[in-house]
Amino acid sequence: MKLPRKVSIVEVGPRDGLQNEPIFMSTDLKIDLVNCLIRSGLKRIEATSFVHPRWIPQLKDAEEVIKGVGTGLHTRISALIPNLRGYERARECGVREINLVISASQSHNMKNVNRTIEESLKYFGSIAEAAQRDGVMVRGSVAVSFGCPYEGKVPPDRVYHIASELKNMGCFEIVLADTVGVANPAQVYRLFGEAGRKVSGVGLAAHFHDTRGLGLANVLAAMQAGVTVFDSSIGGMGGCPYAPGAPGNIATEKLVMMLSEMKIETGIDTCKMTACLDMLRSIVGTGKTGGEIFCG
Amino acid sequence: MKLPRKVSIVEVGPRDGLQNEPIFMSTDLKIDLVNCLIRSGLKRIEATSFVHPRWIPQLKDAEEVIKGVGTGLHTRISALIPNLRGYERARECGVREINLVISASQSHNMKNVNRTIEESLKYFGSIAEAAQRDGVMVRGSVAVSFGCPYEGKVPPDRVYHIASELKNMGCFEIVLADTVGVANPAQVYRLFGEAGRKVSGVGLAAHFHDTRGLGLANVLAAMQAGVTVFDSSIGGMGGCPYAPGAPGNIATEKLVMMLSEMKIETGIDTCKMTACLDMLRSIVGTGKTGGEIFCG
Repeated sequence: MKLPRKVSIVEVGPRDGLQNEPIFMSTDLKIDLVNCLIRSGLKRIEATSFVHPRWIPQLKDAEEVIKGVGTGLHTRISALIPNLRGYERARECGVREINLVISASQSHNMKNVNRTIEESLKYFGSIAEAAQRDGVMVRGSVAVSFGCPYEGKVPPDRVYHIASELKNMGCFEIVLADTVGVANPAQVYRLFGEAGRKVSGVGLAAHFHDTRGLGLANVLAAMQAGVTVFDSSIGGMGGCPYAPGAPGNIATEKLVMMLSEMKIETGIDTCKMTACLDMLRSIVGTGKTGGEIFCG
Repeated sequence: MKLPRKVSIVEVGPRDGLQNEPIFMSTDLKIDLVNCLIRSGLKRIEATSFVHPRWIPQLKDAEEVIKGVGTGLHTRISALIPNLRGYERARECGVREINLVISASQSHNMKNVNRTIEESLKYFGSIAEAAQRDGVMVRGSVAVSFGCPYEGKVPPDRVYHIASELKNMGCFEIVLADTVGVANPAQVYRLFGEAGRKVSGVGLAAHFHDTRGLGLANVLAAMQAGVTVFDSSIGGMGGCPYAPGAPGNIATEKLVMMLSEMKIETGIDTCKMTACLDMLRSIVGTGKTGGEIFCG
């Protein structure tokens, strides 16, 4: 079984998790949580989204969170950017990495940003250009790469096409995302294997949701296809609007536990991560955070 | 990724699941449940345990369940046997397959049956002999193969030794069981790979608990090590005395879902399985049965 020696984890809970939580977590608590996550050893955190507060009021304090956490850290703090205005807001706070998301299905992209895929690619091209001028790193994500809640199956060639275009506009890394949690391990192995061959010369990362309990099996399959960067969310926060009661992103603490037992390095201190989990539980309640972590 | 074309599922919910449920499910409901599981296409079901009712009152109706379901079916009905008296009871009802369980740690075996491993091997040897004389198939299980709640790590050589002895006494299949749910995919791949080389000429099966959410990742690893027989429990019943609130065995419906999406045959009709899940939910409540199944 071909496995990596080392894996990088991108904590997306403060963005993907909190944007799907019904509560508004106060700005101070968000900053505390991100700082706690930094102390646990995470080197990359997607801390917020510069989306209009009308759409996601939970993240209306994007500027304050970024400024409160600071951007001159050893941990790279990134933010999701849906449009030019969002990019300008992010740049003004000194964000060093942005995440641009395009869906692999037209319906999902229209619902998400009211643009076709081609329109999004063109629009993001100009943001990526500005980012490169400003020295900001750009990460590109392909949402619903493994299946769409509106269209069902998604043609893999469309995923590779979008990934190629994102690479050509200068993204340092492409994320294939199972936004609703419908992927299975065989599909994961195939899609990442092919993507590695067809879109070479760029890092590939995986973003899985654990909606149906297949998240960690998908991680195992992705590692065997050569993936070494994984998004996850502390406490498995987030849920999914299409599956009420279901877990959200794969839980960071479960991912770390699995990798650490498999002797795959993550650089994360599980004891310190327990503190983040305790903090989160005291805020959003225990029901949402099913993950268990074994300290030590 | 080397995967099998076809996998056999051994449903153990009526035994491993129900013995860990706090409720006593009535004999009629148990028979209904087993019959429902048979209709879904399962070819092997461990229906009960012939243990003394003082130890597991939930299964005190072992005879009635076996007689009620019948043993002349296309689906093979098996039962767990802890001792000679249990074997005699099982034989009298016409059970065609028995399951003998030995723990890979002395402490767990003592707690379980108050015998050392060597005493158990000797004792089971005579039961296996009687079974062969009677034309009853014998399955051997090695409990806590991946870790023990009392002793922690379990030396793999002890697992292979017990597996060899079980094979030598005539078992047609050896199950390596993660009784408490501590296995990780790398360990699973290693242990089954080695077991396949060291204990050749006998079928190997995997029995995982989903205590920490790694159950399906472990199935993926085991399949890559050549395993094609998996125990699971409808609704993920069972829990675990060492992890309150945690899920029990891997849920049959989730296992079937994953395999079916990976185009690995199981012979199970997912729509008919939904009926079993509905029946179970109406009896033990929804909290215990987190599994979702997609009909069709």
